[in-house]
Amino acid sequence: MIKILGFDADDTLWHNESIFEHAHVAYRQLLSKYHPAEEVNRVLYATEMRNLALYGYGVKGYMLSCVEAAIELTKGAISAQEVREILATGQRMLAHPVELLADVGVVVPGLARDYRLLLITKGDLHHQEKKISESGLAPHFHGVEIVSEKDSASYDRVLRRHGVRPAEFAMVGNSIKSDILPVLGLGGAGVHVPYHITWHHERAEVPATEKRFRRIERLTELPAILPSL
Amino acid sequence: MIKILGFDADDTLWHNESIFEHAHVAYRQLLSKYHPAEEVNRVLYATEMRNLALYGYGVKGYMLSCVEAAIELTKGAISAQEVREILATGQRMLAHPVELLADVGVVVPGLARDYRLLLITKGDLHHQEKKISESGLAPHFHGVEIVSEKDSASYDRVLRRHGVRPAEFAMVGNSIKSDILPVLGLGGAGVHVPYHITWHHERAEVPATEKRFRRIERLTELPAILPSL
Repeated sequence: MIKILGFDADDTLWHNESIFEHAHVAYRQLLSKYHPAEEVNRVLYATEMRNLALYGYGVKGYMLSCVEAAIELTKGAISAQEVREILATGQRMLAHPVELLADVGVVVPGLARDYRLLLITKGDLHHQEKKISESGLAPHFHGVEIVSEKDSASYDRVLRRHGVRPAEFAMVGNSIKSDILPVLGLGGAGVHVPYHITWHHERAEVPATEKRFRRIERLTELPAILPSL
Repeated sequence: MIKILGFDADDTLWHNESIFEHAHVAYRQLLSKYHPAEEVNRVLYATEMRNLALYGYGVKGYMLSCVEAAIELTKGAISAQEVREILATGQRMLAHPVELLADVGVVVPGLARDYRLLLITKGDLHHQEKKISESGLAPHFHGVEIVSEKDSASYDRVLRRHGVRPAEFAMVGNSIKSDILPVLGLGGAGVHVPYHITWHHERAEVPATEKRFRRIERLTELPAILPSL
């Protein structure tokens, strides 16, 4: 019997990956005189993965990896003006207004009447707080938890802190890897709401035997399926 | 009657500003053929302050501001190789081992027997978690709170979350601005343990009329003064 709902934020409540995709397009364009798009993608992703343990998630680490990969891809030929363009793109990402996804503004306040809602998101503390504040959704959430990694250990800490048993908890999010699998692993339930873009690093599958898992196409389907989880 | 002690982390429990100071020296050296040290300091600090609302605190924002200020200071003449050196310096900062300050390894475990300890630090979530984990001090703390800004509102949230009344709370830290004044403002007590370097942005004074404030030179003095706060 679900009593507490966890919501992921980026690409579940508001657009995020589409902002990264816009930046990627500008980045590939900037480097197009040196390399085809596939090679730019390959080196940037390898740089991001190499730096992940040091930088963690978020736009600032992405900006630093973009600069580093551009130096590597151009064998040092990139100009200071082009580095400045990379920084300016990143600053626009950080300043980008929060755009709620479809139905969020209706479904979240409705669910807040019947369930205790937790916002559970990973990434950069400063930027996530700014987005939560700008979203206007904070009053509907009983608690906000910003974690550096969404694994079983961090969900376990969050649920204990709020006195929540996994049996009565469902997590709603767009990432199978970060929002669904670690919660299922603790005995909680998971509802996958796919976003139209998924970062390569977040791709994963749910075993077909999972009983406490659903996939929905629109957030408006959520209230009706919760009693069955 | 103090029952709960809050500890700042950077420059209170372990060295931090000295690592920044080392990086500053390398940065001024890199730009010394373009500008005297004072001008490099001035433009870098102005760039950090301009970006603070967008980047928040921490090494990654510092690295990005260093690159941006270097482009400005050299009017675009900085080479990709020099930008790479700035990134490498920043990555060394993030990978730098945690070095506990004098007496911390003795005083903190001792105080944990008589008080409930909270670690309250600001900055980059990912990097702070890494340092807390590496420090080996986490088992002595009842709670760890990483906040994006240390103002009265964030201390109020932390104290409420842990069910702590300001009357029974003392905060220990090296920054008057971030560790002492906001806590005194809530009615708590503050103990200032100066570090030998203070970032310009953190400088402030305590009014002489404050009753619940002490300054100590060494952490070993802390246990004896707590009953008088």
